[in-house]
Amino acid sequence: MYRPEIKVLDCTIRDGGLINEHLFEDKFVRAVYQAISSAGVDYIELGYRASKKYFSADKFGKAKFCEEDFLRKVIEGVESNTKISTMVDIGRVEPEDIPLKKDSVVTLMRVACYVKDIDKAIALLKHCADKGYETTVNIMAISTALMPDLEEGLSQLAECPLKAVYIVDSYGALFSEQIHYLVQHFAKYLKPKGIEVGIHCHNNQQLGFANTIEAIRKGANFMDATIYGIGRAAGNCPLELLIGFLKNPKFNIVPVLDVIGKTIIPLREKIEWGYTIPYMLAGILDQHPEASMKWVEGGGPNKHNYVEFYKQISETPEQ
Amino acid sequence: MYRPEIKVLDCTIRDGGLINEHLFEDKFVRAVYQAISSAGVDYIELGYRASKKYFSADKFGKAKFCEEDFLRKVIEGVESNTKISTMVDIGRVEPEDIPLKKDSVVTLMRVACYVKDIDKAIALLKHCADKGYETTVNIMAISTALMPDLEEGLSQLAECPLKAVYIVDSYGALFSEQIHYLVQHFAKYLKPKGIEVGIHCHNNQQLGFANTIEAIRKGANFMDATIYGIGRAAGNCPLELLIGFLKNPKFNIVPVLDVIGKTIIPLREKIEWGYTIPYMLAGILDQHPEASMKWVEGGGPNKHNYVEFYKQISETPEQ
Repeated sequence: MYRPEIKVLDCTIRDGGLINEHLFEDKFVRAVYQAISSAGVDYIELGYRASKKYFSADKFGKAKFCEEDFLRKVIEGVESNTKISTMVDIGRVEPEDIPLKKDSVVTLMRVACYVKDIDKAIALLKHCADKGYETTVNIMAISTALMPDLEEGLSQLAECPLKAVYIVDSYGALFSEQIHYLVQHFAKYLKPKGIEVGIHCHNNQQLGFANTIEAIRKGANFMDATIYGIGRAAGNCPLELLIGFLKNPKFNIVPVLDVIGKTIIPLREKIEWGYTIPYMLAGILDQHPEASMKWVEGGGPNKHNYVEFYKQISETPEQ
Repeated sequence: MYRPEIKVLDCTIRDGGLINEHLFEDKFVRAVYQAISSAGVDYIELGYRASKKYFSADKFGKAKFCEEDFLRKVIEGVESNTKISTMVDIGRVEPEDIPLKKDSVVTLMRVACYVKDIDKAIALLKHCADKGYETTVNIMAISTALMPDLEEGLSQLAECPLKAVYIVDSYGALFSEQIHYLVQHFAKYLKPKGIEVGIHCHNNQQLGFANTIEAIRKGANFMDATIYGIGRAAGNCPLELLIGFLKNPKFNIVPVLDVIGKTIIPLREKIEWGYTIPYMLAGILDQHPEASMKWVEGGGPNKHNYVEFYKQISETPEQ
């Protein structure tokens, strides 16, 4: 039996854009929006709402900034019940650049932060809520958070106008028992205040989908996924697997299969994501994938010398 | 804390050989054997022990037959504590072709069968046990087994000279709760007789590794994996992930990383395995991957028309 409370958010454009500086063609973004809408997915995240003060429009694509005219062009004429989300990063958006909800096609503003920045996230989410948006917080790199800090943060977030707080396994480091523990811990603080637990997994250890299911089993009701698992480094929980698993009749897998064959596979031939040994090692060692990305992108004859790479990233300085 | 009872079996050559008719070069098989030995893995399955009466040596490689001279050449001079296994399929081996254990380098004979053939499997495993081998049974396509038949089979197997009975999710169709149920069910019949539960997962839904962990959590002590997940269609639980997860200090991931970079990646450039949409759909629909393999191998302009393929394999005849 399905849980009607479950909401799926597709972040194909936002997380996938981390591979290519969000330099997607407009028609690509529109094809994804059409597919997600036809599939009955609850939310679609069309990018970051970064300010041009911090990032150059020469270097980054439109989905990095999600200005209103871009968003309106993407969705124009498409029949859709899918709500639009954009992500805001602490210190990468000028709050004044965010329009009022009544002047925007966006419904949900997602604030991404590390545990140490929860106070700043709260200021930003309140700003967005005051402007009329739904809000969530995505706590990144949760596998490196210290429990007392996390608990303090959760108790503060529990008092905020939030739809959900996400567990983000940025490094793809967690196993099912840790997911269970975190979901139950988050729920203890948030559920009594009517705030849902969300889950966003990375696929370094091929556990992106599995851990998303495990979070669902323990009561998480907001889940992130991307089409064909697109995303930086090892990528994310694949949307097609999540829809295949969920029994809610509102979802339809066919438009997702269609857009994979027509739009995602051709992109995959140009840019890469997914399981590789360097990303796996970053996951096992609970590290940011940056060193792995450099190793993979560096190419050259040493690219597959995984023993050398393992030595490099697992060496610890003397204490 | 690790469980010393846990035994890992690498079936890279046996399961990987299903992609290329076991036409591996001798030096490839030897490189895998060296890596698995250095990694401290408990068992390595070097192929099938099929009889040449049933398969042509012109069409299939040496690992299809695992004759003694081939095996001895592979292992010659390699320092190793890894036990050697070969798989025997019902009706594809003449029992008389199996030498006595005292004349063989093989320790373990694994009998693969469907639930309907458990009686035949018992005759074959007893034949192998009488010749001096350790034996296991791998029950294939477990996701399609009817429970009364499975229970009858397990109660018969519980009386046999077996090290383990494996749950084989041939179609990559199972989720964690089903794995939990099956492991506990198998254990109920087998553990009181000193027989372990084994797990062999396929990766159609990117759950090969996750489901292997879930089986461990519920008490399975024999687990199959392959290097870099090599195996027919979507492949198997990747050995490097399993070793990364297990805490037993006898395992060493470095030789596995080494052989992936030097030996497996070059092979991967010639033959394909791993997650694709047609294999995923077979997993979701709990079907043999044969139709998917045909679709993928068929290639052509229609290869990525996943909607067409989904329609084809999900159509059910009128009842």
